[in-house]
Amino acid sequence: MEKSIFYHAGCPVCISAEQDIVNLIGEGNVQIIHIGEDRSKILTAENSGVKSVPALVTPSGNVLHINFGASIEDVKG
Amino acid sequence: MEKSIFYHAGCPVCISAEQDIVNLIGEGNVQIIHIGEDRSKILTAENSGVKSVPALVTPSGNVLHINFGASIEDVKG
Repeated sequence: MEKSIFYHAGCPVCISAEQDIVNLIGEGNVQIIHIGEDRSKILTAENSGVKSVPALVTPSGNVLHINFGASIEDVKG
Repeated sequence: MEKSIFYHAGCPVCISAEQDIVNLIGEGNVQIIHIGEDRSKILTAENSGVKSVPALVTPSGNVLHINFGASIEDVKG
């Protein structure tokens, strides 16, 4: 299976969701990207349709926005 | 692994998220409950902390609200 990508920004909601996602789909099946630390990935995330973090982009390209930590605009600011 | 529970209300956002979740965590690992059809489960969902659907309640009891289809209040109404 292709990997999903989990985008987050280090917020408590993000960390909690990350743990859940890793437990559910398996650590080997998900790449984790911290867009607060790796800011070059903010545009990649946006281009994938990510509007807020935490979010999971599935191998089929769908975006699952999980709970609500921060909007992409807030991470940029 | 204990099963997760996916609550939804039949909305397009719910159906799309359901497909993604089933693909990601495996059909055998998730119980799917349509609270629009099985209204007795609305209270169960609320008591688990579900505020909107679609939502996934993990085996550890955490609630992942995924995208946004409908608030529980709207499903009740």
